[in-house]
Amino acid sequence: MKFLISAFILTGLISTIHAQTIELPAQLTGFVNDRVSVQIDFEQQLIEYHQPETYRRHLFNLTQDPNIAGTPGSARVIEYITEVMAAAGLDVSHYDYDAWMPSPGTTSISLVRPVRIPLNNQEYIYDEDPYTAHPDLLHGWNAYSGSGEITAEVVYANYGRKEDFEQLEEMGVDLNGKIVIARYGGNFRGFKAKFAEEAGAAGLIIYTDPANGGYVNGLTYPDGIYSDESAIQRGSLLTLDFYGDPLTPFEPALPLDGDIQVERLDPEEVAFHTIPVAPIGYGAAEEILSRMKGDPVPQSWQGGLPFTYRLTGGDQLTVHLKVDQPHDFTRITNVIGTIEGSDYPDEWIILGSHHDAWGFGATDPNSGTAMLLQLAESLGEMTENGWRPKRSIMIGHWDAEEFMLIGSSEWVEQLRDELNAKAVMYLNADMSVTGPNFRASASPSLKKPIIEASKVVKHPDTGTSIYDTWISEGQDEPTMGNLGGGSDHVGFYMHAGIPSAGISISGSVPIYHTNFDTFWFYETYLDSNFSYGPALAGVYGVVATRFANADILPYDLERYTADITEHIQTLVYRADILERMIDTENLEVLIEETGQLAKRVESAMQTFLDSIPSREQLQQINSHLIQLERSFLDDDGLPFSRWQQSLYAATDPWSGYASWMIPGVRYILEDDRSDDELNREIQRFSTALSRLNDLLYEINKLMK
Amino acid sequence: MKFLISAFILTGLISTIHAQTIELPAQLTGFVNDRVSVQIDFEQQLIEYHQPETYRRHLFNLTQDPNIAGTPGSARVIEYITEVMAAAGLDVSHYDYDAWMPSPGTTSISLVRPVRIPLNNQEYIYDEDPYTAHPDLLHGWNAYSGSGEITAEVVYANYGRKEDFEQLEEMGVDLNGKIVIARYGGNFRGFKAKFAEEAGAAGLIIYTDPANGGYVNGLTYPDGIYSDESAIQRGSLLTLDFYGDPLTPFEPALPLDGDIQVERLDPEEVAFHTIPVAPIGYGAAEEILSRMKGDPVPQSWQGGLPFTYRLTGGDQLTVHLKVDQPHDFTRITNVIGTIEGSDYPDEWIILGSHHDAWGFGATDPNSGTAMLLQLAESLGEMTENGWRPKRSIMIGHWDAEEFMLIGSSEWVEQLRDELNAKAVMYLNADMSVTGPNFRASASPSLKKPIIEASKVVKHPDTGTSIYDTWISEGQDEPTMGNLGGGSDHVGFYMHAGIPSAGISISGSVPIYHTNFDTFWFYETYLDSNFSYGPALAGVYGVVATRFANADILPYDLERYTADITEHIQTLVYRADILERMIDTENLEVLIEETGQLAKRVESAMQTFLDSIPSREQLQQINSHLIQLERSFLDDDGLPFSRWQQSLYAATDPWSGYASWMIPGVRYILEDDRSDDELNREIQRFSTALSRLNDLLYEINKLMK
Repeated sequence: MKFLISAFILTGLISTIHAQTIELPAQLTGFVNDRVSVQIDFEQQLIEYHQPETYRRHLFNLTQDPNIAGTPGSARVIEYITEVMAAAGLDVSHYDYDAWMPSPGTTSISLVRPVRIPLNNQEYIYDEDPYTAHPDLLHGWNAYSGSGEITAEVVYANYGRKEDFEQLEEMGVDLNGKIVIARYGGNFRGFKAKFAEEAGAAGLIIYTDPANGGYVNGLTYPDGIYSDESAIQRGSLLTLDFYGDPLTPFEPALPLDGDIQVERLDPEEVAFHTIPVAPIGYGAAEEILSRMKGDPVPQSWQGGLPFTYRLTGGDQLTVHLKVDQPHDFTRITNVIGTIEGSDYPDEWIILGSHHDAWGFGATDPNSGTAMLLQLAESLGEMTENGWRPKRSIMIGHWDAEEFMLIGSSEWVEQLRDELNAKAVMYLNADMSVTGPNFRASASPSLKKPIIEASKVVKHPDTGTSIYDTWISEGQDEPTMGNLGGGSDHVGFYMHAGIPSAGISISGSVPIYHTNFDTFWFYETYLDSNFSYGPALAGVYGVVATRFANADILPYDLERYTADITEHIQTLVYRADILERMIDTENLEVLIEETGQLAKRVESAMQTFLDSIPSREQLQQINSHLIQLERSFLDDDGLPFSRWQQSLYAATDPWSGYASWMIPGVRYILEDDRSDDELNREIQRFSTALSRLNDLLYEINKLMK
Repeated sequence: MKFLISAFILTGLISTIHAQTIELPAQLTGFVNDRVSVQIDFEQQLIEYHQPETYRRHLFNLTQDPNIAGTPGSARVIEYITEVMAAAGLDVSHYDYDAWMPSPGTTSISLVRPVRIPLNNQEYIYDEDPYTAHPDLLHGWNAYSGSGEITAEVVYANYGRKEDFEQLEEMGVDLNGKIVIARYGGNFRGFKAKFAEEAGAAGLIIYTDPANGGYVNGLTYPDGIYSDESAIQRGSLLTLDFYGDPLTPFEPALPLDGDIQVERLDPEEVAFHTIPVAPIGYGAAEEILSRMKGDPVPQSWQGGLPFTYRLTGGDQLTVHLKVDQPHDFTRITNVIGTIEGSDYPDEWIILGSHHDAWGFGATDPNSGTAMLLQLAESLGEMTENGWRPKRSIMIGHWDAEEFMLIGSSEWVEQLRDELNAKAVMYLNADMSVTGPNFRASASPSLKKPIIEASKVVKHPDTGTSIYDTWISEGQDEPTMGNLGGGSDHVGFYMHAGIPSAGISISGSVPIYHTNFDTFWFYETYLDSNFSYGPALAGVYGVVATRFANADILPYDLERYTADITEHIQTLVYRADILERMIDTENLEVLIEETGQLAKRVESAMQTFLDSIPSREQLQQINSHLIQLERSFLDDDGLPFSRWQQSLYAATDPWSGYASWMIPGVRYILEDDRSDDELNREIQRFSTALSRLNDLLYEINKLMK
């Protein structure tokens, strides 16, 4: 406690300095005027509370052992997170699940002909980075590979994207029974496996090419941040049409020994990959690729190894690939800390990040975990000093994200109805602190609140606001993305229709998912001052507490119109390229109406707040606002995923990471489905927009 | 003679087939109507005469020995060219010069520290290509290097362009006393030496990076066309502000033992490079580059070798570079074959190509030489059958082009006054037959004539016209370039103001200037049918004989306006980027006048021809037309080269190969000179345009 007090004394001093470089707002959207200054003061205290030393300590403690989901290392991390949040005064709960997960098992790759060479599949140990010698570090593997053993000729498939396999077919390259070797990049690795399997391949080797984050790009580990020849990107391969535990779509994978027994699929019914898949570094890949004898590749397929790449290896080159990956029920645990709201405990502001990693996970996920722990401590401390948020703030640490967003998806499935009624927003951290560049992707209604928050937090490198470093010259507003796939927001946003965002302060991490993602790496190359994490904690804290404390939830309602208009333009553009007709007239009418209704709400809001509305009035308005994003939900889900139920945004069904907006319509276009289906999807989205407009109409009425 | 007759019988047959795929024109610009069909028939006979077997024979005979200027191999080529043209019935003359040229001497490069490794500097011998074992093949060298010996640390300078050295300076890299290692590409190699020397470097090594025509791009020699690790690009380094013999600017380097003694500069007065410079392949370069220890390079400087490139080698890496290149007077010989014109023998249509090479020179220059020999034979045969061109056709084979366009420049200097009065055009071949893609760069007045010629010659791959393969879908007209530096047109075009063009049928020759430019390479990878050369000979023949036989020279007069307008736009664009004001109003008025006058000439022409003008009338008009391009000449030359006297086009003074249009103005802009100088250059170009307009006005008068 001593430390906490002295930190608070320091705060007062720094606040004075701050005032010189950061302009604090006089008004805050959704706040009654006389409550603004309290909130602003609170935010600045919170921000000052986030000191580098705390952040460094959490990151250090979280990264002393590899912590793969379900392992003893992970159990230690769960314990640490629990203790830190409990000590900070949060109510901490565990949510356990038994998920169907593979163990690393064994992986072996070797050249058979023309010469027998076993290929290395684990990172080198370097004296510079003592973490690389940790005895619990594992070989390279891809979770949810098929198990099996094969000796076969090889075919190079570039990035293993949809278009790469199509091009191989055009070029007449036979993949039947072959081992495909593809480089990382261009899509989610699971799709490389899916497409290889569909093309008849018997196995897949995925490697990191030196042109994609290796020596071609800069100095390699440990002299620099880029992959050395031994670095292996691990990661899951699952490409089901739902996220979470593969045996329990739509249902939580509650513990087998618990009170409630959930119905589970037979693993035989699930579309797991069947071919063996393994990742390697480019040192090992070179042994294969350099011996290939077929036709040279198209120019854009050439990588950074020192020879002309070939499409096929020929019959004098054979490779042995063996993967044995036993699956079993694995106990995973989400850790959730809650500060209950004083006025509206049933309105939830949720922040989260996963806690499992592929190795030490210094950046992924622990840079984000440490940041959330720091925020838990500052919020806890403020609470101890008498503050209480009006709404509940929950900080979730999800397990087994790396296997396919399992912990977060199961929790969303378990609490689906409650979340539907209560969840105001979800902010996702995950690997969020890796360098100086502030970035955010968000639902339309959260974009402006994030921008506003970035104006009151100082960037540690410049002393000016984060906003100032974020916006480029000549821009009206910083560039923000839309959420795609790849992290725990998917369950909240795409399955449950909760406004979500991912916010980060970013750099480059080419050794992503390798055993080199260590505390030494982080301290040496990403942030030796440990100042980016505290800065980001400030932004999360400001966004969360403004939503927690506001009288009316400060969603940006007008943004829907601008964003959806842009998405419709994209659809029209794609339709044009794909030579389809698409009628968006009705959509455009609806979206214009959305804009008008939103403008009316926003212009009425301040007068309404000045009228000193009752708690009941406010609660009624806010409960409508909470439902706005749910307008996009449709029980039938998307044409390519019944589980993804938001008609507004989805993960790209063919590459995994990217975002698809108005994804039902997009899919029908891209997959060349019938006009009937196209009209049906446009109609579904129109209906969703009508629901949104109806809610806005109701809100307007409630403000009168 | 037997072969010639049988070829003619064949011709009749093929003509019939031709008629199905090529549409022959009913009118020809500059021809009295009743002479059109004779010319068209003549052209088709000429085209049919060009058979692959003849082309193959010439190329084979020209490429049995390396033929570097001044060597016995070159003497054999001169003899062969002389014999072939004489046998074809052309009047053959030799023009000898004694030029100040280096001999290959000795070059050696080796690592000194951390380990002594002599570096290979000659191409490997491959069984697949027996030419690679020829005993007369030489080591890699760059002509006009300084002689000297140095052991020093190394600095990597990317392409050694102006901007690369500027960036090195910005990055604080000290080049004093260092050996610079730069990769080929991005500019004329001589500028790499010039900039290195200016930056204080003590030596320069130029290498071919595998990312610039090596394994990164495709299979390497002899499995493919790309440079293997031993391939070395040779070439001259001279960067004087004039072309030709370095001791005799503006004057012909007439033989020392001849009747006329020309004044020569003392070699000490000439701005030769003083530092030793040598080229190597990437196998040798890797030995140096892989051992460098300094900071990593900017991303765009990274090449294709398998490590991160570094800016500096550090003091533990030293390289020994020795170049000994004795200079002496070297006898060189141009060979010129002439068919004298029947009506206007003093109006010259000149075609040419150089005959010296760096090795066998199968593509450079002999693919063009063989084509011109084939054309000499067909024209000779037609002459033997009673045909005579109205104007003289001259086919020149220039010596020592590779050293700095010496033979052609000396010839232009020697015949300057005569050429000024008589030269109608110059068509340059040089390395013109290397693949299927037809391309041309030309003076404005020759663009349309080349396009028209391409319509009546069949492309051997398609059976349709070359024009059809050349024009892209949606284009009104094929894309044509403007002439820059790099070949023998420079003397004719930039020094003497003669309308010029380079026409080629092209592919990719990454092993350019290496010992791999062999007949085996040509036959195996570029044209196993030897059909592209004959097709190109057709285009040269049609362009040349239309100009030789026309009643009024068929220059495209209207094109000046379009092209010059475009160049002015480029100047305005550059001025804008460079934040300069440029007043082009007067120029625009003049160029519009040019357009109106040209249109008047062209619309009056046919009526005038129909009026059966006298020989004297025609000759008077044509002598004015011949002078049109000379309007751009200015005795003061350009700000960066008094020798380049065309104010219309010049070689890029900072990269060597590219073209600069309206180069006086461009230079003042780019070199940040004063507004006074800018106005002076604009005024000079305006005056040139006025001269052009005056001539057009006179021509209009003459047609009345």
